Order: sequence, then C-alpha cells, then structure tokens
Amino acid sequence: MFAQITVIAPGLLGSSVAQAARARGLARRIVIWARRAEVREQIAAQAWCDAAPASRAEAVSGAALVVIAAPVTQIVPLVREIAPSLPPRPALSPFPSGALVTDVGSVKAEICRGAHEALAVASSGGGSGEAGAAGGRGQREGRAHFVGAHPMAGSEKTGWEHGQADLFEGRTCFVTPLAEAGPEATSEAVANANEAVAQFWRALGSRVVRVAPEEHDEIVAHISHLPQALASTLCAALGRQHPDWPQYAGAGLRDTTRIAGSDPQLWRTIFEQNREAVLRALDTYAAELREFRDALARRDYAAVAATLAKGQDTRRHLLA
Amino acid sequence: MFAQITVIAPGLLGSSVAQAARARGLARRIVIWARRAEVREQIAAQAWCDAAPASRAEAVSGAALVVIAAPVTQIVPLVREIAPSLPPRPALSPFPSGALVTDVGSVKAEICRGAHEALAVASSGGGSGEAGAAGGRGQREGRAHFVGAHPMAGSEKTGWEHGQADLFEGRTCFVTPLAEAGPEATSEAVANANEAVAQFWRALGSRVVRVAPEEHDEIVAHISHLPQALASTLCAALGRQHPDWPQYAGAGLRDTTRIAGSDPQLWRTIFEQNREAVLRALDTYAAELREFRDALARRDYAAVAATLAKGQDTRRHLLA
Repeated sequence: MFAQITVIAPGLLGSSVAQAARARGLARRIVIWARRAEVREQIAAQAWCDAAPASRAEAVSGAALVVIAAPVTQIVPLVREIAPSLPPRPALSPFPSGALVTDVGSVKAEICRGAHEALAVASSGGGSGEAGAAGGRGQREGRAHFVGAHPMAGSEKTGWEHGQADLFEGRTCFVTPLAEAGPEATSEAVANANEAVAQFWRALGSRVVRVAPEEHDEIVAHISHLPQALASTLCAALGRQHPDWPQYAGAGLRDTTRIAGSDPQLWRTIFEQNREAVLRALDTYAAELREFRDALARRDYAAVAATLAKGQDTRRHLLA
Repeated sequence: MFAQITVIAPGLLGSSVAQAARARGLARRIVIWARRAEVREQIAAQAWCDAAPASRAEAVSGAALVVIAAPVTQIVPLVREIAPSLPPRPALSPFPSGALVTDVGSVKAEICRGAHEALAVASSGGGSGEAGAAGGRGQREGRAHFVGAHPMAGSEKTGWEHGQADLFEGRTCFVTPLAEAGPEATSEAVANANEAVAQFWRALGSRVVRVAPEEHDEIVAHISHLPQALASTLCAALGRQHPDWPQYAGAGLRDTTRIAGSDPQLWRTIFEQNREAVLRALDTYAAELREFRDALARRDYAAVAATLAKGQDTRRHLLA
C-alpha cells in the first residue's frame, strides 16, 4: 500500500496501472499528470483518479511511487524534470527511504541508465532549476530510486480511454534492476527499491521476471520487436499487391498482422532505442527464412516439413 | 437444393460443409465417406450425416454434388477413383446434367487440371476397373464436372470433430473454373456447372470470388502461404533461443504465430503444390524485410517509420 501513486503521461498502459491500482487498493490516493488540459479534465472525472493537477511538480510532490507511462524517448527527460520535486520521505510506502520511480517502456538499457543518472544528479544537488530547493540530500537520506519495468501487455490500441483494470493479470512484467551496486548502504536501499517495485507489479497481477536491462532488451528484440517487424513488413509487402487481395484473407492473415496496426511513431522509437539487439534478431530470423526458401527452391520437402514441425513444436510447447 | 451431397474424407472443412449444408437445408440426404471405420462409425451418429458407407462407390452413386475434403495431394487420386461411380443423371440438382464435384484444397492449378482430366477420361470410357460399367457415356450426356473451390476458413485445428456449421459465414470462398472452354454445348454445361458450384458455396454463407486456378494460387501464395511461412519460421527461429523467452511474450507474439500450430505435413504439401508462386511471394517479402533491416542498420529512422506506416495503412484499410 502506498499513500500516493502518481502516473505521468498515461496512455493505454498508464491508465491501466491507475485502474488496476485502484481496483486492488494499492494506493490511498492516485494522482495523474497529463500534458494536455482537456485530457487532465477528462481523467479527473474518472473513479481511478483523485487529482490531475496541471503542474508536474505538484503531481509528484506527495508520491511514494511514480509511474512514467510516456513513450520511450520521453521517459528519461520526464524523470529528469520530476527529480527535484520527489519527496525525500514519502508517507506510507513499502520502501523505507525516498520515492520510487518506475516506467512501462518497451526498451530498458538506455532508459534505466539515463533515469538512474537523472536521479543521482538530483540527489547530489546537481540539478538545475527547482532542483536547488530539494538538492543536497545525501544518498542514504531519502534518495529516489528508479527501477525500470516493462509489462508485456500492450495492444495495437493506444490512448488512456482503452485502459483496463485487468490488463496485467497473468501477464509477464519485466523488472530490470541496474547491475551496478553502489556502496553497501546504497546497495541495500537499491535491493529494497528493486523488491518494492517488483512487489508493486506483482500486486497488479503480473508475473514478474527480473533481468538486467540489457538482457531484457535482447529478449524483447526477439519476442516482441521481431514479430512487430514481421507483421509490419508483411503488411507493407501486401500493400504493393492488388488492393483486393488482403480482403480475401482468412483469420490466419488477420491474426498474423494484428500488431501491424500499432502506432508507427511509437514503434519507430522502440526500434531506434533497441537498434542493435533488433538487428541481431532480424539477422537470425532472415537466416531461418532464407533456409526455408532455399529448401523449397531445391524441392527439399523434408527440410520444408522439418522447419514447419520445429515451428509447430515451439508454438505448442513454449507459447501454449 | 440437392437430393444428395456426399462429402469425401471429411476433416475440419468437410464436416463443416456437411453441418452447414444440413443447417441451411441444402440437401435431402448427406452421405459421408471416411477412410477409417471408426471415424465412419462416429460420423454416422451425427445429425448432419444420413449414411456413412464403407464403399466409396456406394457413397457417391446417388450424389448430385460431391465435396472432396481430403488434403491437396489426395484430391485428384480420389476424383479418379470416384469418377466411374458418379451418377450420369443425379436426382434433384440445380445442374441439369451429370454430377458436380468440388473440393476445399488450398491450391488449385494442379488440382483443377488433374481433376478435369480424371473426369474427362471416365466420361469417355477410358477409365479402368469400375469405370467400364459406367463408361462410354458422351460428354453432352450427364458428364460429371469438377469445379475447384477453396474456402478461406481454415484453422490451426484439424479433424472433423472441430467442424462448425457457421465456419463459412462471411468468409471468402474462391471458386476456380478452368479457363479452357470446350465445344459450344460443353461450354454451356461448364458455365452452368461453374455457376451451380458458386451458388452452393454462397448458400453455405461464403462470399464467392471467381478467379482462374493460376490466379488463385498467386493470390493465396501471398495472403495465406506467405503468412504461414513467416509464422512457422518465426517460431522455428525462436525455438533456437532460450526456452523461457517465448513464455514471456504478450498477445502480440501469440497472435502473430497462431497458425504456426498448423499441421506440418498438410502444409508441406501445400508448399509443394504451390512452390513457384510461394517462392515469388517469399522473394518479394524478403526484399521488403531486407529494406527495413538496412534502414535500421543505417539509422534511417524516417524510412523505418515509413515502412511501419505503410504496414499500418494496409492493415487498417485492407484488413479492417
């Protein structure tokens, strides 16, 4: 239980976090900050929102936990901006010192490094602007901690109005602590922060998987970003054919390409931030596809069937 | 309305045809032939089956319409085998002369050519075995006609027990008349046969699309066989990674790979029969994927976003 959870920049995932937290009684008070005034107004009227102030500093000033739900490129800048306003001793939190900050970004290495630095700078008084007022507190005294998270519960839909309280139930949520541990005292605080954030995502109904940010990025390059690339390029390739053709398709093509309906700008930044791991995944995949194509070209139907059987096996046992 | 419809070798699609025909009152009598005795016994007990004889000749001898629901490699051999037993003047049929034969195979060029020849041979008395008895009737007198069909209503499930009466509702069904027309009288009979088979599939609830067999094969290479190849090779590639990884995946990967659960032996024969068109589709696709990969490699994020947007556009407008 947190005295206050603040969700920054809620889309589908952020509003789902707020709804799930309310449904499961995880916060006394839920505060939302959205950039646009009309969105703040609409959200303020929801049962899962207690306040939606225009000021980001005001929104986070009482928060024991802040969830940054913005697109990946905006997460670190937002952490930097809220850092000076985070309370050094938030009321009622499972984490004994400082505020916790987490996110829902699809890539983690760059974000976790950047957010960690942003909070370190703020806590050492090196921040600018508002940071001066809150700066100067030592690491052992109420320093805020960032622990990245990535719930595997997106959708091709976007927008806070599509959020659902049960979105995270039974779904994987990666929690990605930074590997580097500081001095002993900090290290214990870090361990506590990591555990508190993992507990939060578990409390929302997720199955938490803890991995280092880099490992997370390698995994999702294969299980999320690669399928997105295939669905999008398949649709792009079909778009070059006669416009009637896709309309003849059965459920197979529809399912295979559902995620191609996702927001291109959002995915562009995901591919950008996870470029190297995605390139590795694409190259591994292209080799597999090439092998299949070549087997078909040389009429090696046993090899064609073997690939199909291997695919069926993975689908059955690993994706059941 | 047909006096008798016979379904040969029913799996998911064949039993769905029988169930839909019964539900929509398209046949007075529905006869099923299955290879295995235990399947015949089980099917004979279904409300959508009036008889399930062990003899194929007996099963088709009173049929105004025969639906061959076997896997693609078995369709032409089965047409050849039933040809001599097809009735020259079946009772109660929208087609005035001879029996109609259709199928549900996923490829059409080879099957339509082969089945047409098999019936032509039988009607000219050139068949072997049982053919002697029925042979010798002229083309204008009760000759059976094959008109290929392919309902886009499969599933990764197989087996007659998964059939559904509403499987074809609102789904595309390709009907693929052979382009070659014979002498004038035959030509009119051919036109009538084509129309009667198209009407049958419409009566089952399908949206019928009439194309030549070769065009059909080119279309499905892109909208059905290519997605199958991508889903299977994606799963095969993921199968090389850590076995935990796919289990972390969200709904995106699950949807994208659903059809990878399909029967490998069934699909092996589809790829075999449609090899050239599938190779063309694979090569077009591989070029699109390569372009995407290269754009990402050279950090051309505008090009990355453009492909994603093109994919989204196709998905939205053509696959809505």
